[in-house]
Amino acid sequence: MIDPVHLTQALLRADSVTPARGTVFDVLEAALVPIGFAVDRFVVGAAPDGPVENLLATRGDGPRHLAFAGHVDVVPPGEGWTGSPWSGEVRGGLLYGRGAVDMKGAVAAFVAAASRSDADKGTLSLIITGDEEGPATYGTVALMERMAARGIVPELCLVGEPTSTERLGDMVKIGRRGSVNIWIDVPGRQGHVAYPHLADNPIPRLIAVLAEIETVVLDEGTDWFQPSNIEVTDITVGNPAHNVIPAHASARLSIRFNDRHRGDDLITRIRKIADRHAPGAVVTGKVSGEAFLTEPGAFSTLLSEAIVAATGVTPALSTTGGTSDARFLSKLCPVVEFGLINATMHKVDEAVAVEDLRTLADIYADVIERALR
Amino acid sequence: MIDPVHLTQALLRADSVTPARGTVFDVLEAALVPIGFAVDRFVVGAAPDGPVENLLATRGDGPRHLAFAGHVDVVPPGEGWTGSPWSGEVRGGLLYGRGAVDMKGAVAAFVAAASRSDADKGTLSLIITGDEEGPATYGTVALMERMAARGIVPELCLVGEPTSTERLGDMVKIGRRGSVNIWIDVPGRQGHVAYPHLADNPIPRLIAVLAEIETVVLDEGTDWFQPSNIEVTDITVGNPAHNVIPAHASARLSIRFNDRHRGDDLITRIRKIADRHAPGAVVTGKVSGEAFLTEPGAFSTLLSEAIVAATGVTPALSTTGGTSDARFLSKLCPVVEFGLINATMHKVDEAVAVEDLRTLADIYADVIERALR
Repeated sequence: MIDPVHLTQALLRADSVTPARGTVFDVLEAALVPIGFAVDRFVVGAAPDGPVENLLATRGDGPRHLAFAGHVDVVPPGEGWTGSPWSGEVRGGLLYGRGAVDMKGAVAAFVAAASRSDADKGTLSLIITGDEEGPATYGTVALMERMAARGIVPELCLVGEPTSTERLGDMVKIGRRGSVNIWIDVPGRQGHVAYPHLADNPIPRLIAVLAEIETVVLDEGTDWFQPSNIEVTDITVGNPAHNVIPAHASARLSIRFNDRHRGDDLITRIRKIADRHAPGAVVTGKVSGEAFLTEPGAFSTLLSEAIVAATGVTPALSTTGGTSDARFLSKLCPVVEFGLINATMHKVDEAVAVEDLRTLADIYADVIERALR
Repeated sequence: MIDPVHLTQALLRADSVTPARGTVFDVLEAALVPIGFAVDRFVVGAAPDGPVENLLATRGDGPRHLAFAGHVDVVPPGEGWTGSPWSGEVRGGLLYGRGAVDMKGAVAAFVAAASRSDADKGTLSLIITGDEEGPATYGTVALMERMAARGIVPELCLVGEPTSTERLGDMVKIGRRGSVNIWIDVPGRQGHVAYPHLADNPIPRLIAVLAEIETVVLDEGTDWFQPSNIEVTDITVGNPAHNVIPAHASARLSIRFNDRHRGDDLITRIRKIADRHAPGAVVTGKVSGEAFLTEPGAFSTLLSEAIVAATGVTPALSTTGGTSDARFLSKLCPVVEFGLINATMHKVDEAVAVEDLRTLADIYADVIERALR
């Protein structure tokens, strides 16, 4: 039986600023092999977004199949830590280190949980990337391609991101909003302000486009999602001359949207508004993730019951916050996310309560038990 | 009797890129003193807008008093001239040089005209600055202070800017639009686009301000002025991060306005619009010139008659184009502007037809005759 605190410490002592390769995966592999996992490590991709190391571990061949997804890369520690960000030391019941909650602690807790469960009962997989904090081009997406090539298809996927907010167990994520950035460029013709009829100022057209965008209500929210939201995040003209009418005006939007929308449809919708007020405007978009929702049901109920059993806390089912790799995994099977308290993630002196680590291992063990029953 | 072509050549051969000092004024003084003018040269102002040299010349003490205003500084010649921009050479009936039409030619024509007129008849003044093409902080304004201190008050002022467009005499300016630049800065609170309720995006408020400004019709024009016009010339947010809601958004306006408006009133009007849509916005303005109009009357009639007599062309009375030093002089007395064809001003190979120079001297001589009659 693996101790989740010891394994977290070992993982924390391996500096693994994104993209992670090598030692941190060695530590993980060394824990997984003795408890019966077949470990498939591979390095993929080229600069600038690669190379990235990933690890796919599987155990058992029973019909029920639970996957656990996570990452062992971390964001840079930054300055100002009380101790070393790579010490993995325990002070006052807290285990410190970059990645303690996001999310080496959860990876260790799941491995500890797997070490307690019957290896012959169902199938378990671990989908672990070395690039979740970076561009994520060769991370979970590459792991899913590997799984498809090898015919590995889980029934359920638990993502170990730190979803708890005040107390361990108070929040489970059953979906995430999608995200799209859109650029609008309105061309005009430069000229002198004293002779506006000889120029063509693009700014009034851009203002008209943005004024209509400001009136758009994408939705009022759903049972599970807050309303979709459009933010204009930048406007650029770049005209230092007081007496000159500029030749270009552009704006950038960021839209966070729920499962009523798809990224490409939103780009099309913005393009139509631009065409109406600014014919000739160039609208481009980049979808960084579609919205997804795992409707509350068997999986979330199973997880909630395990949480209540271990903590007495009934988790809220939420879809708030930024994106996570769950946006990719949701194409594979129902996905829910549950992990440690996120208060210190990405901050100086990131730390997890030793007791929370042990409780999380208990919850994950219970989830394995219930999912493979 | 001074020859306007020879004097123009002498002035052109003195490099006098703005701000002008020294030689070009020596040439002018050497022409004025022999024909009876008392010459008052003075240098005024400190960096960055000074020092600037100015020249005030007066002759006679009769009750009628005509002033001629102009400048001997020029814009930089730039590259690509056929000959030297300081050669003052005549080729094919054209006299070439930086400042030939803007406006050493007109200064020379007026001095030539004065040399033909009776020195005992009325009063003539020349108000000549070395900084009309630059910031103009210590130019005509300083000359007017000098005149006030010395008790010199003309009845009429003729500005020799190149107002003709196709043929010498086709246009006289009887007014100019005013000009004001206005800056609007809308503060907000920075934050992450995934959590817009924790931030305060200033862009929607700026868009609302600008959208209302776009609906403003300042006027429909007057008998003598085209409609006043507002141009939004720049918008600045300066936010490179896709996921960040910015803390500031600002815009710059340039308003060219007719004599229905005053610059400060326009700033106040824009401030009220900003306050309505973006409380806390900071609105600042800089009036570079108020509009002025010398209503068509005795002075413009006298000038038109002199032009018709010499050329057969009836001039249009116009208020178009940018600002000129006439905006300052209009506070002193009725001002009209008339000079050479402006087609080559500020351009490579700036040139004046020798014949036009002689005709302009004839017209100016006739104006002196009629004004001091």
